[in-house]
This record gives sequence, structure tokens and C-alpha cells, in this order.
Amino acid sequence: MSKANAHVVWHPTTVTKADRQRQNGHKSCILWFTGLSGAGKSTLANAVDQQLHERGLKSYVLDGDNIRHGLNRGLGFSTADRKENIRRIAEVAKLFVDAGVIVLTAFISPFREDRELARGLVEPDEFVEIYVKCPLEECERRDPKGLYRKARSGEIAEFTGITSPYEEPLSPELIVESGTQSVEESVQIVLRYLEERGIIPARR
Amino acid sequence: MSKANAHVVWHPTTVTKADRQRQNGHKSCILWFTGLSGAGKSTLANAVDQQLHERGLKSYVLDGDNIRHGLNRGLGFSTADRKENIRRIAEVAKLFVDAGVIVLTAFISPFREDRELARGLVEPDEFVEIYVKCPLEECERRDPKGLYRKARSGEIAEFTGITSPYEEPLSPELIVESGTQSVEESVQIVLRYLEERGIIPARR
Repeated sequence: MSKANAHVVWHPTTVTKADRQRQNGHKSCILWFTGLSGAGKSTLANAVDQQLHERGLKSYVLDGDNIRHGLNRGLGFSTADRKENIRRIAEVAKLFVDAGVIVLTAFISPFREDRELARGLVEPDEFVEIYVKCPLEECERRDPKGLYRKARSGEIAEFTGITSPYEEPLSPELIVESGTQSVEESVQIVLRYLEERGIIPARR
Repeated sequence: MSKANAHVVWHPTTVTKADRQRQNGHKSCILWFTGLSGAGKSTLANAVDQQLHERGLKSYVLDGDNIRHGLNRGLGFSTADRKENIRRIAEVAKLFVDAGVIVLTAFISPFREDRELARGLVEPDEFVEIYVKCPLEECERRDPKGLYRKARSGEIAEFTGITSPYEEPLSPELIVESGTQSVEESVQIVLRYLEERGIIPARR
């Protein structure tokens, strides 16, 4: 309804992002984890989420588990569909930021263009690109979902790192080396960054 | 990453919906406002959101303002697109419920089938359908966005209530008569319902 409608007595004031951030006691942003399949994006995102939650902060993880069969059901692996896949995730992430929540997204998101689109949806200080860097050989050795095996055997046609490129971030806010750093170490790197940037309060 | 990956030392425990609800001090659910254009859905949803926020609860409104040019950009008014429009809104609402947030959706959502799809995505006690009931004549008299005028003149082809049906909810959790009740009264009806259902704490 129009706010100019003279027949409505109610004087609408909407709750703003700043209002919600103030109440939550921290700023909101997107922590955009990108990297090869098996690099540990989802593990790291969930570990950071857990730490934020334990500190009483508001956070939420978007990953394959809650997106693939829900919002992005029906999307395939064509170039157009992969773009749309990332676009929708970015738009939903933006809504969470508006709601005052620190939202963590854990998707391969191999193309720079798509990640830049996501970045462009929010304010410059609301987007934290985190490159979960792990050598292809190590990811393939781990192969937690058996996807590399299927890609090598031709069962999966286009697979990032094997038959489809992964475009490394050129200037991500953070790089974690998940081949050599432990999850605990990586979590601390992310939390320290958020503290230093003033997104979350420093731990007493 | 698979939780069974033996090479990862971290023992993943993910934060659950119940964890988030406990921390927020209230349950999460979808308040699905439905009704004709101009009935006052968005006004009411924002007013409820404001009251929830003032009580320190976590809530967020999805409406045309933050969905149409974002997540649902590119969708038109064909039957398939209108269905997909509501489906995406429902899927995003489900994510907010999972994040522990009371999410308020304000869309005409004229078809029972689409609303039932939304209802089916969450637990039975997590979906509150609120019929914002207002006579067509009153909505058309208000015509806050000038849409009824355009529909009558043929500028808009399919318009709910004029050239496209609005299927009234058969058994909504709540009905507010926005033609006769004030926004303040309607807000109280919604809040009282949430208190009685144990979704939010009763006001002291």
C-alpha cells in the first residue's frame, strides 16, 4: 500500500537494517566462501556460524543442503542456470543482510563475474570474499562426495577443476589455505577479520 | 564436505533451528498475509514487524519492495511465472524460519494452490495464513498505486479481482477485516494470536 494513502490512519515506519543491526549488537554482511569442491567451504562456514552463534550473534549458512532442493530446485548446469543459481543465492543473502544477519554462503561459485555480481548487490563493506584455497590434488584425494571420481570417469560432464575452470579470486578479502591450515585456525582468521573490521564486537 | 571425511579433524556440529529459536527467545514461523491489492497487507505486515522488533524479537518482511526487483526479477505474469514467484518467496521464507526469524510475507498470492504449496514447505505450526479481507470496492476506491484504474482501462491485462480471480482462503489461521478494523486493531489480533500459540512470549 502507498504510504501516501490518506485513508490509512497508521503512520508507517519500517524497521531499518540499521535498527536491526543495533538490536543484534553487530553489523550484518555476506561471508562469501568460494573454492573447489572438497576444499572445505561448507565445513568452514558452519564452523564460523557455530562460533558466531556461541557469541550470541545472528548468523546463518546458505549452502547446497538448504538451497539446491529448495530455492534452486529445477536449475541445471548450463551456463545460464549456473549464473541464475548464484544470482538467487546472492539476492537471498542480501535479504539476510537487510534483516541484520551475518550470512555465510558456501558454493563453489567458480566464475569471477558471478561473484562480482553478488558483491555488487550490497554495500562495499558488506561483502567479504573468502577464498578457501586448497590444491586440486588434495581436493581430489579427499573427494568427500565421490564427485571427482565421477568427473574423471565422465559421469559428470562439466566439473570445476577437471572439465570446467575455477577462476581464482584476484583480491579476496581473505584467503584460507585449507590444505594446510586446520579448521580451527581458519575459523580464527575469519573471526579476527570480522572483529578488526568492526563487523562483530571484539571478544573480551 | 562430507561429515564422514576422516581427514578433517574438526567435528562438525551445525547450529539448529531449535538452537536459534532458543537464543532468540521465541519460535519462528511464516506469517503469510494474503488479500487483494490495496487491502493493506504490506502496511499490516510492516506494522506487526515493527511491534515484534520493539519487543526485541527477530522478524523480517518480504514484500514487493525487496523481492520484485531482486530475487524475482525477470518473472512475468504468466501462470507459470506467478507460481514460480510464490514458490521462491515461500522457499526464502522457509530459510528465514530455519534461521529462527519470524518472517512476514505480503503478496496478493491469489491462488489457494500456491498458498498450500507454501504451507507445505514448513511444519504445520510454522505457517500462519492471515487473510487481509477488504471489499473489492474499498480496495478500488483506495487504489493506492493506481493499479485498479489501469486494470479497468485495460492497461494491465490480468489483475486480481478485476480480470483474474482471487481465491479466498478456506480456513486461514486469521482473518483481519481491513475495511473496518484499524491497523492498530489488526496488529493486536496478530500479536495476540502469536502469544496464544506460544510463538512469542506473552507481554508482561
